[in-house]
Amino acid sequence: MLEALRAEVLEANLELVRHGLVLYTFGNASGISREHGLMAIKPSGVPYRKMTPADMVITDMEGRMVEGSLRPSSDLLTHAALYRAFPGIGGVAHTHSEYATAWAQARRPIPCLGTTHADYFRGPVPVTDSMTDTEISQGYEENTGHVIARAFKDIDPIETPAVLVANHAPFTWGMTVSEAAQHAVILEAVAKLAHLAIQIHNEAPPAGQALHEKHFLRKHGSSAYYGQPKIKE
Amino acid sequence: MLEALRAEVLEANLELVRHGLVLYTFGNASGISREHGLMAIKPSGVPYRKMTPADMVITDMEGRMVEGSLRPSSDLLTHAALYRAFPGIGGVAHTHSEYATAWAQARRPIPCLGTTHADYFRGPVPVTDSMTDTEISQGYEENTGHVIARAFKDIDPIETPAVLVANHAPFTWGMTVSEAAQHAVILEAVAKLAHLAIQIHNEAPPAGQALHEKHFLRKHGSSAYYGQPKIKE
Amino acid sequence: MLEALRAEVLEANLELVRHGLVLYTFGNASGISREHGLMAIKPSGVPYRKMTPADMVITDMEGRMVEGSLRPSSDLLTHAALYRAFPGIGGVAHTHSEYATAWAQARRPIPCLGTTHADYFRGPVPVTDSMTDTEISQGYEENTGHVIARAFKDIDPIETPAVLVANHAPFTWGMTVSEAAQHAVILEAVAKLAHLAIQIHNEAPPAGQALHEKHFLRKHGSSAYYGQPKIKE
Amino acid sequence: MLEALRAEVLEANLELVRHGLVLYTFGNASGISREHGLMAIKPSGVPYRKMTPADMVITDMEGRMVEGSLRPSSDLLTHAALYRAFPGIGGVAHTHSEYATAWAQARRPIPCLGTTHADYFRGPVPVTDSMTDTEISQGYEENTGHVIARAFKDIDPIETPAVLVANHAPFTWGMTVSEAAQHAVILEAVAKLAHLAIQIHNEAPPAGQALHEKHFLRKHGSSAYYGQPKIKE
Repeated sequence: MLEALRAEVLEANLELVRHGLVLYTFGNASGISREHGLMAIKPSGVPYRKMTPADMVITDMEGRMVEGSLRPSSDLLTHAALYRAFPGIGGVAHTHSEYATAWAQARRPIPCLGTTHADYFRGPVPVTDSMTDTEISQGYEENTGHVIARAFKDIDPIETPAVLVANHAPFTWGMTVSEAAQHAVILEAVAKLAHLAIQIHNEAPPAGQALHEKHFLRKHGSSAYYGQPKIKE
Repeated sequence: MLEALRAEVLEANLELVRHGLVLYTFGNASGISREHGLMAIKPSGVPYRKMTPADMVITDMEGRMVEGSLRPSSDLLTHAALYRAFPGIGGVAHTHSEYATAWAQARRPIPCLGTTHADYFRGPVPVTDSMTDTEISQGYEENTGHVIARAFKDIDPIETPAVLVANHAPFTWGMTVSEAAQHAVILEAVAKLAHLAIQIHNEAPPAGQALHEKHFLRKHGSSAYYGQPKIKE
Repeated sequence: MLEALRAEVLEANLELVRHGLVLYTFGNASGISREHGLMAIKPSGVPYRKMTPADMVITDMEGRMVEGSLRPSSDLLTHAALYRAFPGIGGVAHTHSEYATAWAQARRPIPCLGTTHADYFRGPVPVTDSMTDTEISQGYEENTGHVIARAFKDIDPIETPAVLVANHAPFTWGMTVSEAAQHAVILEAVAKLAHLAIQIHNEAPPAGQALHEKHFLRKHGSSAYYGQPKIKE
Repeated sequence: MLEALRAEVLEANLELVRHGLVLYTFGNASGISREHGLMAIKPSGVPYRKMTPADMVITDMEGRMVEGSLRPSSDLLTHAALYRAFPGIGGVAHTHSEYATAWAQARRPIPCLGTTHADYFRGPVPVTDSMTDTEISQGYEENTGHVIARAFKDIDPIETPAVLVANHAPFTWGMTVSEAAQHAVILEAVAKLAHLAIQIHNEAPPAGQALHEKHFLRKHGSSAYYGQPKIKE
């Protein structure tokens, strides 16, 4: 069932590993088939080198197991909550990548200091509220999804496909799981650039609005002109 | 004698190397057979690529040589003192890994700023007292073990399996030597995350108690639900 | 057409990748044949491992396509403007390399703190003005070239072959495209050294003028004595 | 002539490359035969992958060419001056390694904050005076050696085998060229540890004298007990 999705989810998980975003098994990516109302997610705590598409766990949109012999990622219910909250997305990724996690621990949004950021995120990458003791003790993983959704009350999650969960780490998403993983890689690069920049100039002002918009729209929307016209490879 | 333990000790030493925690031969890991009252430890100053399980040195719990033709790690008596002080542990590792060593040199405990830390250490990673001139001049290595034990007077070493020896470097431990090595790897990751975070926000407050407990108990104790149920591989 | 130039341009783009200056496809290098009035530039958004010399796009000095089936780099018109503004140069490179980009985001010129810098850049590496909203909305890429040229009103671009575009990233150039790529690599090293140095001593004074000149002239001009006499390899 | 020394000098130069201390060809190591009064040094600006023992250049202790078809490293006369100033040494290495060079640019001695440093350097790693305009314009490379020797007026160069040349970069030395290269590697590690430590605690006090002495004497002198007894490999 969902052969292509399983393979794409595995590949996205390996993309996180290849870019050095994952220590041991601390990361996970999932993809969804909106048509079937089913998601495929990495199993929990299984070494990457042994993982096959068949190990991906299939659940419904409430996170109930549908197919698979392994336990799903412990963050499963966060993924499920994000798919329900953000109907336009097709994949979710979660890592403890070094620089993005440092911003999450410092509870500071990543300011847009340059065009690398503007190319992919239309505004600063927001930080969630700290979770309440009740949100933590009852339904922690699902509530992590809710606290993320709350942070996007006034932000379009398609245009800013990343968040920093306070004192935890980043989640990213995209139209597909491979895009979600790519956004995790780019978020880490952007987080490092901003970290290095504020060591040089602690009060570095963000890039101007015109520059931000220009770069975002070079890559997104109907007037985009970066890369080759989309064709089947 | 102790074939399996020797092999596990060698493998744990190589795990430290694979994760970039060791420059030249600056690191060591040991394991203990409580049943036999014997420990196996890396020899001193031997290149890793030439090392075999037979090179591991076997000593009793006072550090007296029992089997082996090479000199044991110069930190042998620290390991022995830790095994006597912490009866629940089965392995010890010591490195000069970059970020954990920097915290040790700065004589600052590593605060728990996020869930990566909380997953493995139930509180801040403590720093030992500075050693006195007498502790240094007479029985330095054994006294290093004693000063570590003192730092855990009010901390459960099983729940916080790491320490920073002031102006020196980290020691970690675990139920087995491979767990001790894994804790050295994770300590370094946690030390780097905290280092990066305080550059962003110098007064970053620690993660709340509820979040810390939740993450620690996702991975430890009878209600743990991370990873797959323990099975023989 | 221009077989040798295409091959050299591809090779220079790969040099940027080998030195870790490029994430995904975020970088580009071009070379010019002054004799033909034609430039060869990397195509936009094509994975490096699939790239061949035939994929390089040939344009005239206004950036009008002359040969090639792929879209050129979206920064084409910046390259073209630089070739027109700096008649002595034969190649241009652009990356978002980490440390140089951080200086660009912080809008701080890279001071000459040591001989590594002095060996290659005769003065500080300048930062451009921020671009106006009009410069951004109308002819952004070409205006990026103009704002760079303005920053060199009083600087010889041959002696300081690098610039930081404010809130964007570095451009470098050289007598050939391979020299432009080499300057991008060295700029990143110099940017990192200066970044690390100001963390140690925030007010570190620049290297003296005599030392700067000595090192620059060891490698450049008629009295240079670094390396072997130029011979055909 | 001097076959074994040539091979050892090449190998030491490659050791610098393997440990990431060298960008392009920015580094050099030499060894001396005190018996013959001759030194062997890397040629200038030759790619490492093409280098053979026969490419090493042989000079006398004034730096006059004795054998070799390539130009020697441009820092030749600094090496020669060091061999004359420090009669106990057998090898010299020079790199622009990132962290040690940053300390040199910041003109700050590397304080001894921990045992990694104490294991190899008996005190802080000193910084030279800035060179005068005359020292730079007339006999720059030889004067670099003299300014280093001056920094060791009250320091034993055998016990602290490293220096930071102000606004330039480190030189290290040892009983042999391979030891000189190893000291360059360890200096870089120590420089990084100290850099990271002062970001955590800007006023971190140095390790106490007793700890420093203990660690230095574990590895050096007649009571050393680190590593295996010296035997032929």
